[in-house]
Amino acid sequence: MKDSIVIFSLTSNIELVKEVCEYLKVEPGKIDIKQFADGECIVEARESVRGKRVFIIQSTSKPVNQKLMELLVCVDSIKRASAKEITVITPYFGYARQDRKARARQPITARLVADLLIAAGIDRIITIDLHSQQIQGFFNIPTDDLSAIPLFGHYFRNNFNKDEVVVVSPDHGGTTRARYLAEALHTPIAIIDKRRPRANVVEVNDVIGNVKDKICIVVDDICDTAGSLVAGCELLKEKGAREIYAAVTHGIFSNDALEKIQNSPIKQMIITNSIDFKEENNFRCDKIKILSVGKMIYKIIESIASEKPVSKIFDIYSVTANKD
Amino acid sequence: MKDSIVIFSLTSNIELVKEVCEYLKVEPGKIDIKQFADGECIVEARESVRGKRVFIIQSTSKPVNQKLMELLVCVDSIKRASAKEITVITPYFGYARQDRKARARQPITARLVADLLIAAGIDRIITIDLHSQQIQGFFNIPTDDLSAIPLFGHYFRNNFNKDEVVVVSPDHGGTTRARYLAEALHTPIAIIDKRRPRANVVEVNDVIGNVKDKICIVVDDICDTAGSLVAGCELLKEKGAREIYAAVTHGIFSNDALEKIQNSPIKQMIITNSIDFKEENNFRCDKIKILSVGKMIYKIIESIASEKPVSKIFDIYSVTANKD
Amino acid sequence: MKDSIVIFSLTSNIELVKEVCEYLKVEPGKIDIKQFADGECIVEARESVRGKRVFIIQSTSKPVNQKLMELLVCVDSIKRASAKEITVITPYFGYARQDRKARARQPITARLVADLLIAAGIDRIITIDLHSQQIQGFFNIPTDDLSAIPLFGHYFRNNFNKDEVVVVSPDHGGTTRARYLAEALHTPIAIIDKRRPRANVVEVNDVIGNVKDKICIVVDDICDTAGSLVAGCELLKEKGAREIYAAVTHGIFSNDALEKIQNSPIKQMIITNSIDFKEENNFRCDKIKILSVGKMIYKIIESIASEKPVSKIFDIYSVTANKD
Amino acid sequence: MKDSIVIFSLTSNIELVKEVCEYLKVEPGKIDIKQFADGECIVEARESVRGKRVFIIQSTSKPVNQKLMELLVCVDSIKRASAKEITVITPYFGYARQDRKARARQPITARLVADLLIAAGIDRIITIDLHSQQIQGFFNIPTDDLSAIPLFGHYFRNNFNKDEVVVVSPDHGGTTRARYLAEALHTPIAIIDKRRPRANVVEVNDVIGNVKDKICIVVDDICDTAGSLVAGCELLKEKGAREIYAAVTHGIFSNDALEKIQNSPIKQMIITNSIDFKEENNFRCDKIKILSVGKMIYKIIESIASEKPVSKIFDIYSVTANKD
Amino acid sequence: MKDSIVIFSLTSNIELVKEVCEYLKVEPGKIDIKQFADGECIVEARESVRGKRVFIIQSTSKPVNQKLMELLVCVDSIKRASAKEITVITPYFGYARQDRKARARQPITARLVADLLIAAGIDRIITIDLHSQQIQGFFNIPTDDLSAIPLFGHYFRNNFNKDEVVVVSPDHGGTTRARYLAEALHTPIAIIDKRRPRANVVEVNDVIGNVKDKICIVVDDICDTAGSLVAGCELLKEKGAREIYAAVTHGIFSNDALEKIQNSPIKQMIITNSIDFKEENNFRCDKIKILSVGKMIYKIIESIASEKPVSKIFDIYSVTANKD
Amino acid sequence: MKDSIVIFSLTSNIELVKEVCEYLKVEPGKIDIKQFADGECIVEARESVRGKRVFIIQSTSKPVNQKLMELLVCVDSIKRASAKEITVITPYFGYARQDRKARARQPITARLVADLLIAAGIDRIITIDLHSQQIQGFFNIPTDDLSAIPLFGHYFRNNFNKDEVVVVSPDHGGTTRARYLAEALHTPIAIIDKRRPRANVVEVNDVIGNVKDKICIVVDDICDTAGSLVAGCELLKEKGAREIYAAVTHGIFSNDALEKIQNSPIKQMIITNSIDFKEENNFRCDKIKILSVGKMIYKIIESIASEKPVSKIFDIYSVTANKD
Repeated sequence: MKDSIVIFSLTSNIELVKEVCEYLKVEPGKIDIKQFADGECIVEARESVRGKRVFIIQSTSKPVNQKLMELLVCVDSIKRASAKEITVITPYFGYARQDRKARARQPITARLVADLLIAAGIDRIITIDLHSQQIQGFFNIPTDDLSAIPLFGHYFRNNFNKDEVVVVSPDHGGTTRARYLAEALHTPIAIIDKRRPRANVVEVNDVIGNVKDKICIVVDDICDTAGSLVAGCELLKEKGAREIYAAVTHGIFSNDALEKIQNSPIKQMIITNSIDFKEENNFRCDKIKILSVGKMIYKIIESIASEKPVSKIFDIYSVTANKD
Repeated sequence: MKDSIVIFSLTSNIELVKEVCEYLKVEPGKIDIKQFADGECIVEARESVRGKRVFIIQSTSKPVNQKLMELLVCVDSIKRASAKEITVITPYFGYARQDRKARARQPITARLVADLLIAAGIDRIITIDLHSQQIQGFFNIPTDDLSAIPLFGHYFRNNFNKDEVVVVSPDHGGTTRARYLAEALHTPIAIIDKRRPRANVVEVNDVIGNVKDKICIVVDDICDTAGSLVAGCELLKEKGAREIYAAVTHGIFSNDALEKIQNSPIKQMIITNSIDFKEENNFRCDKIKILSVGKMIYKIIESIASEKPVSKIFDIYSVTANKD
Repeated sequence: MKDSIVIFSLTSNIELVKEVCEYLKVEPGKIDIKQFADGECIVEARESVRGKRVFIIQSTSKPVNQKLMELLVCVDSIKRASAKEITVITPYFGYARQDRKARARQPITARLVADLLIAAGIDRIITIDLHSQQIQGFFNIPTDDLSAIPLFGHYFRNNFNKDEVVVVSPDHGGTTRARYLAEALHTPIAIIDKRRPRANVVEVNDVIGNVKDKICIVVDDICDTAGSLVAGCELLKEKGAREIYAAVTHGIFSNDALEKIQNSPIKQMIITNSIDFKEENNFRCDKIKILSVGKMIYKIIESIASEKPVSKIFDIYSVTANKD
Repeated sequence: MKDSIVIFSLTSNIELVKEVCEYLKVEPGKIDIKQFADGECIVEARESVRGKRVFIIQSTSKPVNQKLMELLVCVDSIKRASAKEITVITPYFGYARQDRKARARQPITARLVADLLIAAGIDRIITIDLHSQQIQGFFNIPTDDLSAIPLFGHYFRNNFNKDEVVVVSPDHGGTTRARYLAEALHTPIAIIDKRRPRANVVEVNDVIGNVKDKICIVVDDICDTAGSLVAGCELLKEKGAREIYAAVTHGIFSNDALEKIQNSPIKQMIITNSIDFKEENNFRCDKIKILSVGKMIYKIIESIASEKPVSKIFDIYSVTANKD
Repeated sequence: MKDSIVIFSLTSNIELVKEVCEYLKVEPGKIDIKQFADGECIVEARESVRGKRVFIIQSTSKPVNQKLMELLVCVDSIKRASAKEITVITPYFGYARQDRKARARQPITARLVADLLIAAGIDRIITIDLHSQQIQGFFNIPTDDLSAIPLFGHYFRNNFNKDEVVVVSPDHGGTTRARYLAEALHTPIAIIDKRRPRANVVEVNDVIGNVKDKICIVVDDICDTAGSLVAGCELLKEKGAREIYAAVTHGIFSNDALEKIQNSPIKQMIITNSIDFKEENNFRCDKIKILSVGKMIYKIIESIASEKPVSKIFDIYSVTANKD
Repeated sequence: MKDSIVIFSLTSNIELVKEVCEYLKVEPGKIDIKQFADGECIVEARESVRGKRVFIIQSTSKPVNQKLMELLVCVDSIKRASAKEITVITPYFGYARQDRKARARQPITARLVADLLIAAGIDRIITIDLHSQQIQGFFNIPTDDLSAIPLFGHYFRNNFNKDEVVVVSPDHGGTTRARYLAEALHTPIAIIDKRRPRANVVEVNDVIGNVKDKICIVVDDICDTAGSLVAGCELLKEKGAREIYAAVTHGIFSNDALEKIQNSPIKQMIITNSIDFKEENNFRCDKIKILSVGKMIYKIIESIASEKPVSKIFDIYSVTANKD
């Protein structure tokens, strides 16, 4: 099996790919990624891919356009070099929040990105906690959306008494995600709700569900500027929450997000390494706990490479398996 | 403008199309739809479509496969007959609930249907209250998803005091939709929540948010067998709700759904004519109130046909316009 | 070889698939096919297809739209589940009679169905006695059109003296098919001809060729309502035919077709199990004799799965092989 | 209308295009067609096509590969020059006889040609008497297959007493075509039938139907080497035919076809100018009578250019309109 | 005409678009281009494009990936908003230097970019001095490659005596371009040639052709880091050139390119505004003279919008027209 | 490996394919190629290709349209016969000189040919000395462009003292190619330059670079009518060249090209067997020396068939490998 696969890391997830390759007992594929002075990049594999199953691991995280273009150029070169099959693994799939046309002349950029990847030549894509699961349907090739929720479930189950806990969705759109974690922990849920009591009156936040004296775990897929997350946590505190944790798969932490979190009522924030968290950021915020998605990526690569069913991995690392 | 368009009704929405055509002051296009003894259908326009903008109105409602195939065959024939442009209007877009791969070997049938329509040759699609808005991204052609929520908002605003009302989502996935209606009415929301208090224990329903002594408006996109809707409403009653209304865009009413509703605590159920509601069904259930989507369909056809912006219609008849 | 293939039966040909699997010494693949109350179906394989050659056997027979949609949904799910290759076997390929645009605004539904199957993701299709052989060209993927004519040839050769037999085409379009059977039996042919002796005079049937005192074998691809078949046979009787047999690959038998045949001069009607013939139908008509296409399907699956040439099977089970 | 269209003739049908343009009262578009010493061709329009409806008239007749490539190159250049729409008119559509896969490893070249034309960029195709009408379905763009049979019908109706005439199909595949002409003339049909009385015995020709003392009109779509046509006519003579006419849409006349016809019992052969018949060929065979398809091409261009329905033209110049 | 077009500027060429719009006497289209903290961008037109011919002007210059993604997202949104036609004008087309596979596993990124633009939904592209003209063939839609060489020709013709001038190509690949300018000026050419006199010996620059005492005009399409341009000019000086000018269409000026030019023997460097040259850069290098491509862009938009031939513009602003 | 491949020769390179097959120790695949009287061809493999890697070797040389169509028809039949993969090897790729749109309404036929091959169904293409390397980007499938320049380099290196040699490009476009050969030989280059000294004055040829008393090797990719090659060589003679050799990959030799060469100052002309050179042509011109490309084709087939990297072959037989 090892002779038939090549795992390439581009520039987003170098440490994560090392971990995955150690599990797989293979070396990461040799590849040159150059960026020229004008911002153009070129990607050239330094080993043969002819007839191989190629896995390219790259989060399209900040700066998203550069990471995406690196990925597209890499796929083009691998396709032209006669690989047997190209699987792209994007631990974080950028532009996922642009997944619907909310106004008359908006793009649906997540679909555009899917089309760009297919135009470049990918055969399969693996993602983790897509902003909406419907994005799988933006592709007409095999997709698997894994989830870090089981990792969060395992982490909290071992550290808390379920009767004291409530899982909180920071907005309406995240209710289903909150329920998945709540189901893993056998706890109730609450929802942070913004509403406008009268016309022409400013929106106010409210909490639906009981959080008083509870350990609140706010769960979300993405933390970007941390604005609404921190505002929500402050509201929870106001409503009598005992302790507040945040569990977020993808830590983008734009602008002063880390400082905001440091100064918020959040006690600990659990994220994954889907986006590389630079060690020096610990100086800006010492509340971050990182869980690795390395093992689940390893397992799915192993299944694909040996043509074994992924359904068992999927049962463990998917929010939707074995439900309904 | 009238000379350059043809509006065809297939078999799903004959009355609705008449209403639309009256607004437009045109006759529905002449078309033969035959179904043979073995179930094969054939669709043949009886007037020229050469160089015209053609609108085909057909909900892919029960029996969905027949209605869908009628639509595909019609599109094929119109495309081959040199129409300038084919816009399909599906007031109810069937198979929308299969919009993601929830288990290892599931189809994403909503995307498949999008691909079938595109393979047949459509240029644009208009829908109403898609089960998830991301389905717009299953198409790479212009789409517009209108909404009946503004119609519901208008209906309830005129009939109730907002301080007595709470909008209820019957499940987690519908929270965002409930919020849209709540925003139109300036009321709070509540959510019917299923959870499992301990492992290996049956799921129980609960209500998050305050419904006691309130007028509850349960809002949803689809009512199929009415099972979970009626169970939710009974729970609301139990939790002290004063009066219960249901507002559902698409009334499929499979099996004994109408009888269930008749015998439920629901006082009135507001639906639209996106799916044709046969008059004789009033004998099975006399609680149904139908609002017509005819005017919004008329307006969007007029905009498309005269190449005027649809954004104004979209502002009125879309849940997402002007929101962030 | 057995480990690398999975054979799925959908709902059309359960018995036939069992027969094929017995020849192949494999179990049919486990698959759930559900139909919801509103007519939507969902198909989910219950075993892994990753890296396998998948064969899906489904006639798109009555009710054709449901059977076709089941097939498309199944293909979508299997494609998304990373099968190596998807071969669809439609013993009866529905909508084949809509294979050309006979009037100005007609569809070419057989091409549409080909496009739908390709949009869903099939890699190859196997058919039996397509209504016209040109339908192969509606696909741009490998196709093989097998034929039941050799089965009919074998059946009649053993039971009749060729000098007493004439093969009859029930219409002009079937002349070539009649010739294939006649060639197998070394007999002459005759044609039932409809013509209009003068303008504005009703069409009358006539027979071209000699049928007097002959054993007539009327051969066709499809028997739907049996109207023109029975009318043709009555004409043959009138013209002095001694005995009349019918040999038809696909027995749809819509409406009262079986009763018509029972009351007709047809002595025996030979069909295949390309469309499942319910045993209870024998009470409606006791003249039906069924030949199985199981062996030819088994042989072609075996060839494909072991990457051996199909040309030998094709030589036996094709009307066109080795002819110019 | 005239300002919005350009009609280009390539090298196959220069006289026919002149006739069409005279009807339309336009000049043929200026275009350079060069063939280099190594056989490469280049086609360059000498007038603007930007925003115009372009019609390219070219039979893909002998030498077919050169004529086809000229056409493809022309389409590519017109597409790149921003024409509004490209309609190709192939009075004779070459490679049509390769329309099905008759043996295990045969091409379906007629479909290939359709794909090549679509890859090059055509929007619509007009043909005359396609070898099989199913070839329309090889295209997924608008197609119209006109017919010269009505021209033949008109010609013979004026010259013969219908009671003395029988229309003859020269083989099994042409029976349907023979019936169309017979229907126009209200005459019976006969078929020339090849069969093998016993295994391993040579094929003999026979005639099904009555031709004795009759005026036989043998009708076919293509006359290539004239071998089987002349053999059939000799058989008809043998069987007592009084006079023999041939009516063939496309006169290819390869090798010594014209000499064969000259020396055959055929009294007169009616063809069309779908393929240019050089005047000097009259010295080789003085039995050829040419009917022009110019008027029907003019009428369909006029309809397309003015976006009027073609169905009326289609009613006149199609074998299938208004028939079931 | 003005009512039927909208011209959008993205972020690359704001001044140039203003100039073009002044020529056209239209306002640039209203459009919001936001870049989020994580680098994701969103583009939303603020005016209707329904049924309009839309022109999007954006050089994919430094930072190329961001500019390209802005363009793709804009195209997606305009396509979904039912524009009649989308023409992209990239005065500078980035990634053009990656136009062939020079080593075994290289990408052909210029083709990839073409495919991305087509996947997003463009209908036509206008470029200026593509790095190689063959890139036009990477698109299968209408393309027009204009040239600044005629602008350079006009500039130098007015300022120099042709007998003193030689046009110099800075490398082998640019010989054809040098000849175009030389032809406009009726001067000879010279070429800067790198060669290796013996194996394992370093490459040395040489000049082929006579430059002694001449006014040398070095012509190229792109000036990126200016390394080889300046080295070439120093060699020319060494070989006795009297005065040295550079004429380069696209001034990227990465790193310290401007300082290098300032300190080089180049007397004046003529560029265009295909890439925006910030005024403050004049402090870094005062030798830059900018010619505007605004008029040629205006002329081609006017031709397209009024469906007049572009060939006349093409005759003036193309290096290839009316040659060979 | 040998069991998994089939090598088919069509009609262009029968001897070359024999040579390749001898290296590979396989028999050429059995295949029938028929050309009918009207110019239609049909291609049918006479052995199974199911599941095999198929290589089709065919130069699209004179008569190019016939050779190209043979190739397309062959690909269609092989695709429909379920080959695993189709690699086309065109030692000479016709229509390559039409690789850009030089005037307003020109085709880009080289791209068209790429699209035709892809529409027919090829998976990979191998070429030799494409007229421009950018043509690789006309394909979005794996391509490899080998080169005969290394063969020429080896030939001349062994026969000449490098200090006496200069490599000459016969025009501006060939400068890069000349440099590749010069680099292999460590010699300078010269260029034949056409220029117009004043407006409205005829073009005159000139030579840039020093050729006096030198052995000139004129290198080019294609020799068609030999007009400009011979004119260039005469100019070299005039300018004092001692001896003149020509090295051209593809010898088309249209019209009286061979006679022109025979009567020219060219001492010897080195070509390859990419295009079959008939032995009898030696009577027309006895200066032709043929180098075989058989070994490089053998090596690349072996690499592809055994899924080993081609980069080593590419290093030897490519002009661009290991160069920047």
